[in-house]
Amino acid sequence: MKRKIRMGMVGGGRGAFIGAVHRMAAALDGQIELVCGAFSSDPERSKASGADFYLPEDRVYPNYTEMIEKEKALPEGERMDFVSIVTPNHVHFGPAKMALENGFHVVCDKPVTFDIPEAEELVYLVDQSDLLFALTHNYTGYPMVKQARAMVRNGDLGEIRKVIVEYPQGWLSTRIEAEDQKQASWRTDPKRSGAAGAMGDIGTHAENLAEYITGLKISQLCADLTAFVPGRELDDDGNVLLRFNNGAKGILHASQIAAGEENDLNIRVYGEKGGLEWHQMEPNTLITRWLDKPVQVLRTGVGDLYPESLNAARIPAGHPEGYLEAFANIYRNVAACLQAKLAGEKPDPMHLDFPTVHDGLRGMRFIERVVASSNSDQKWISF
Amino acid sequence: MKRKIRMGMVGGGRGAFIGAVHRMAAALDGQIELVCGAFSSDPERSKASGADFYLPEDRVYPNYTEMIEKEKALPEGERMDFVSIVTPNHVHFGPAKMALENGFHVVCDKPVTFDIPEAEELVYLVDQSDLLFALTHNYTGYPMVKQARAMVRNGDLGEIRKVIVEYPQGWLSTRIEAEDQKQASWRTDPKRSGAAGAMGDIGTHAENLAEYITGLKISQLCADLTAFVPGRELDDDGNVLLRFNNGAKGILHASQIAAGEENDLNIRVYGEKGGLEWHQMEPNTLITRWLDKPVQVLRTGVGDLYPESLNAARIPAGHPEGYLEAFANIYRNVAACLQAKLAGEKPDPMHLDFPTVHDGLRGMRFIERVVASSNSDQKWISF
Amino acid sequence: MKRKIRMGMVGGGRGAFIGAVHRMAAALDGQIELVCGAFSSDPERSKASGADFYLPEDRVYPNYTEMIEKEKALPEGERMDFVSIVTPNHVHFGPAKMALENGFHVVCDKPVTFDIPEAEELVYLVDQSDLLFALTHNYTGYPMVKQARAMVRNGDLGEIRKVIVEYPQGWLSTRIEAEDQKQASWRTDPKRSGAAGAMGDIGTHAENLAEYITGLKISQLCADLTAFVPGRELDDDGNVLLRFNNGAKGILHASQIAAGEENDLNIRVYGEKGGLEWHQMEPNTLITRWLDKPVQVLRTGVGDLYPESLNAARIPAGHPEGYLEAFANIYRNVAACLQAKLAGEKPDPMHLDFPTVHDGLRGMRFIERVVASSNSDQKWISF
Amino acid sequence: MKRKIRMGMVGGGRGAFIGAVHRMAAALDGQIELVCGAFSSDPERSKASGADFYLPEDRVYPNYTEMIEKEKALPEGERMDFVSIVTPNHVHFGPAKMALENGFHVVCDKPVTFDIPEAEELVYLVDQSDLLFALTHNYTGYPMVKQARAMVRNGDLGEIRKVIVEYPQGWLSTRIEAEDQKQASWRTDPKRSGAAGAMGDIGTHAENLAEYITGLKISQLCADLTAFVPGRELDDDGNVLLRFNNGAKGILHASQIAAGEENDLNIRVYGEKGGLEWHQMEPNTLITRWLDKPVQVLRTGVGDLYPESLNAARIPAGHPEGYLEAFANIYRNVAACLQAKLAGEKPDPMHLDFPTVHDGLRGMRFIERVVASSNSDQKWISF
Repeated sequence: MKRKIRMGMVGGGRGAFIGAVHRMAAALDGQIELVCGAFSSDPERSKASGADFYLPEDRVYPNYTEMIEKEKALPEGERMDFVSIVTPNHVHFGPAKMALENGFHVVCDKPVTFDIPEAEELVYLVDQSDLLFALTHNYTGYPMVKQARAMVRNGDLGEIRKVIVEYPQGWLSTRIEAEDQKQASWRTDPKRSGAAGAMGDIGTHAENLAEYITGLKISQLCADLTAFVPGRELDDDGNVLLRFNNGAKGILHASQIAAGEENDLNIRVYGEKGGLEWHQMEPNTLITRWLDKPVQVLRTGVGDLYPESLNAARIPAGHPEGYLEAFANIYRNVAACLQAKLAGEKPDPMHLDFPTVHDGLRGMRFIERVVASSNSDQKWISF
Repeated sequence: MKRKIRMGMVGGGRGAFIGAVHRMAAALDGQIELVCGAFSSDPERSKASGADFYLPEDRVYPNYTEMIEKEKALPEGERMDFVSIVTPNHVHFGPAKMALENGFHVVCDKPVTFDIPEAEELVYLVDQSDLLFALTHNYTGYPMVKQARAMVRNGDLGEIRKVIVEYPQGWLSTRIEAEDQKQASWRTDPKRSGAAGAMGDIGTHAENLAEYITGLKISQLCADLTAFVPGRELDDDGNVLLRFNNGAKGILHASQIAAGEENDLNIRVYGEKGGLEWHQMEPNTLITRWLDKPVQVLRTGVGDLYPESLNAARIPAGHPEGYLEAFANIYRNVAACLQAKLAGEKPDPMHLDFPTVHDGLRGMRFIERVVASSNSDQKWISF
Repeated sequence: MKRKIRMGMVGGGRGAFIGAVHRMAAALDGQIELVCGAFSSDPERSKASGADFYLPEDRVYPNYTEMIEKEKALPEGERMDFVSIVTPNHVHFGPAKMALENGFHVVCDKPVTFDIPEAEELVYLVDQSDLLFALTHNYTGYPMVKQARAMVRNGDLGEIRKVIVEYPQGWLSTRIEAEDQKQASWRTDPKRSGAAGAMGDIGTHAENLAEYITGLKISQLCADLTAFVPGRELDDDGNVLLRFNNGAKGILHASQIAAGEENDLNIRVYGEKGGLEWHQMEPNTLITRWLDKPVQVLRTGVGDLYPESLNAARIPAGHPEGYLEAFANIYRNVAACLQAKLAGEKPDPMHLDFPTVHDGLRGMRFIERVVASSNSDQKWISF
Repeated sequence: MKRKIRMGMVGGGRGAFIGAVHRMAAALDGQIELVCGAFSSDPERSKASGADFYLPEDRVYPNYTEMIEKEKALPEGERMDFVSIVTPNHVHFGPAKMALENGFHVVCDKPVTFDIPEAEELVYLVDQSDLLFALTHNYTGYPMVKQARAMVRNGDLGEIRKVIVEYPQGWLSTRIEAEDQKQASWRTDPKRSGAAGAMGDIGTHAENLAEYITGLKISQLCADLTAFVPGRELDDDGNVLLRFNNGAKGILHASQIAAGEENDLNIRVYGEKGGLEWHQMEPNTLITRWLDKPVQVLRTGVGDLYPESLNAARIPAGHPEGYLEAFANIYRNVAACLQAKLAGEKPDPMHLDFPTVHDGLRGMRFIERVVASSNSDQKWISF
């Protein structure tokens, strides 16, 4: 009999931010059920969190090691199908590796790991298995991002010449990590966040979005990273010149000290025939510009959109779809692929449209390269 | 032990629109599980739909009568807690009445019934029971709508003078009901939709939103309804002058022939000290205007918002919340109230913030009054 | 030899608002020179104002009577060609009548006169002369308003079904006329403003704009006017249902107590095939909507616009044209027509696109009708 | 007796774009009259153009040399006060130098000259004279740009950390210079335009705007210029990383191949306490952002703006001021300074707020530096 896909979670207990997002995203379509979790490195907190989610006590574990071991021991009709990893960056690798080695699929928050060697090891593990590994570069889940990608791929804009991708936030304009703000404290800590601050946290989203939409690869970059807030060790702002593998030029900048900005990831792409512009904070709108023709404002669900876009929307035009719906598109595709596996079928190619461990490794290399570039007097660094 | 709240559904099988919305809204927060349903008047379709939702076959019923009877016969630890009714207007009353008479709480789509007598009977049944009845005037679920309501209630705008509420759509600009479009065909059919077309389907949302935000009551109205599309029996457009119980004046208009409009419910409220403006298609923004001061743009989750607004948001500022999240706020409040009942406690007053059967009756009277006014030569009709 | 057109001005001295607007609008294109004026009912103020404008003392007059008499006595190569009347409403008729009777063309601010009989007399005088009479319903001068008109006229939207025209301002939200604010005091005074307040001052602009763009005539209306601010005699807010001569329906509302609004005249027009939307505060944008196609955003000077629109713009796309440029389009057309007269030629029909004394009379009747409707229990009043 | 300031013009005959802009800007406020000109290098075209402007034949000259000589020979009560130079870049220096050497003030379009030595010579001539030299970096004339500058200067944003200035256009996306488009052909020709294309034409506006608003100086830059359109010799796109003298970081990019973009010069500035954003295409709006407070939207003429901003607006709030009005603010200030000179007084410091020959030299150096940087492997180049 058909059944829902079963999810176990690592991290995301009381007080966490992204764990709740993953749970809502997984729940939205009724395809996935949360069956177990190791929600915190504090066993008591893990237990309390499990109760919040109405889980039976014996499926709430004090740590991910025990969770993976005990779940593996359960009969196939009962144990989790995949692990969702929603811990800080430095605790991605451990549970991901162990899950893969024990035959569990993985959904992992980004950046994929703490450093490049970890990412390379995960790539190796995934590539030699038949397991899925989805990375939640969630912004690629929006219907109008998928429309943008399809437009470029179909040549609607002609050859791409220029890409501008921005990710301004303002929430780290002051030193809130000194006040024990949980989200801020690990993100600004090199021991937990990795080699970069803003560039790792949000710059990688920008890099991923630009390459996802354009289908191009950044081939060279020139970066200038700054830690503006006194006492901060990692960059809270960065500006990067980009060169793409087809000769296109670009700019990427990301900031967490852009005072007053919320979360305005946005991108503009210009080709020989036209351009497009998308803003995460108004995600259902895709502005398209044309040589000698009026601007056309494409909207989720309106008119002749590409199937990739139509397929990513849940409700009719004019009913705004938000961040959680875009995030849920990753989980929905993962669930569909796992259902295909359960049924012994090949997944529909449309359902393979989610970021993978390879995107994760590319993100880690991006972080390494922008940091290296910023520390160098050499103008261009290859990527 | 704590458990999720259990939902049964009437309507919403394959091919329906609003049923899927209710299911996603109910699932989002992990507080409610779908346990049974009578998803279609066609038993085969009901059965197939139940399988889509991974329900056991014995909890998928051929009709709502059998569902309510059989669920009632189940032990308390197993049977559904409430019924969600997502059928066309003329099939609201039957299941709602039967559910209430058998001790089940109800969540019902709007307008609440086909006509006023039905609505009055439901009011009577609810009022003499201790059952909850939530009506999904979902637009009141948006965080910035709750902020607007709190601002008016707290006197931030001063005494209200003028209210403009609009609901333009364009999808019925041509006679698509003649082409068997499912959503169009029942909405334009007086036998299934009721006394009004656009005014019933979306005008009631506008009326509900205006009264919800302002806390005022419309006391008089003057309407001009039109069926523009040849062959259409019910209004597809209506313009209404409003007078409120405090002396404020207003305008309400709703249209389904506003060519090219998606679903742009919006409202402006002006008081002695300031004004506000909200658009459903950009729901996380609330524009506030002031005498001799710059416009302030309030955003979901940013700055000093009222608790009613903060409480209705799930994710940090800049991560757009959409239609489903607003819809889910009704379900979340219902679930919280039912959890309180299970625990033998009084619900938190914050959780009682959802539209009720009384709002439903008011909506039915609004429909009756605008139709009467439109047919009359008398300028003002009381409401 | 070709020469500039010569303008005399009545009103518009130091401290006035609209006089300066007229002077800048007349000067912009280098086609008109200010040669004389009676700038104030206070002769000293008139004299000082004339010096501000670098006029010789003998062309600055203490009142309009003397101005018209003395200018008429000057040789044709020297005397003014037309009078620009920029006084409060109750001082339009006197100078306009005298100018026409003495062979001078007239440009007059709106509303055209204090009451209907005055307007009728001016119509009579103009119609039996060969003199020009231009009324500065300046909002029709914007390039994108002309584009909108051309689109409707060419059937791009199909038959028009619905028109919504709004004119919200907030500057009279409090009783600033009691504080001797010059603009407020005459506008709120029935002896100087006429039968209506907001409806006369800005409602007539809205009425004119709706009829200009659609080419339709309002045939019936139902109005509800209010004086919200205590102590105010004339309406500061009004809501009006409209019916047009082709069966279209509409709404017009105007307010000067819409707290925090600047000057947001705007219009939406919906036809069978599409709709359009224009806002005076972003005048270079015309939003067009279509059945099942994306929104197209037309912009001043971009792409294939109608000649009427292209002709009304002065600078390339992306260089915003504002209020003064639109106002200047009336003066530019007047100057072109007068040059044609000087040359003994017929004016280019394109240059006859400015509001006339007939539009002025229609505006006066609109004022009379909305006031009558607001005082009546009858639902519909013909117009 | 007081009189208008007298302008002579070099360039700007029939078919030119920017000449008409200068004439309208000079005419708008009624402070300046065009008295003579050498409107074209073609004497017949110059003569015909002079007739278009109603000039007497003897004040229309075949070239600027003759114009300056003959005007100098006229009596002081008659001859021009200043020269307005509106020719292509390579014809700025000649008339400017000759005008200065003959005692005439100068208004000159930008960039100030063809190369740096020319600019240095003009600086020398101006500095040792008591003549005015105004450069039409017109975008600094907008009221909300002046508000932005005043806000930064007054510390409202705290210490500035990040500046992003963009100038995207799309009109050179194809090789229209090959089709003899007049504006395109000289701008893409190194012999007439100078060392840079887009960077000279519009990049200098961006550089000027950023330094004008922030009061900071760019101290280092790293540029990547590209000529995307095949066959084009000069850059049509450029991306530049910036470092400012206070430690702020920034990005400047300018493009004429950003397909579909009109003329969207825009800037964002972020400081420790807040940020601001301004777009030339909606010039009356200044978005301001704050730590933990809602966005405030400042608008021309609304609320408590700084005097520099209020003083630069001509009409009340809500009546949009455009490109010509901003341009006219330079001419208005020049006229006021020249009136002060005529009266033997010192100019009001408020009237000295216009770009000068020093800004022009800085612009020329900016062009030289970005071209040098683009050709270099060195990361940072000082400026």
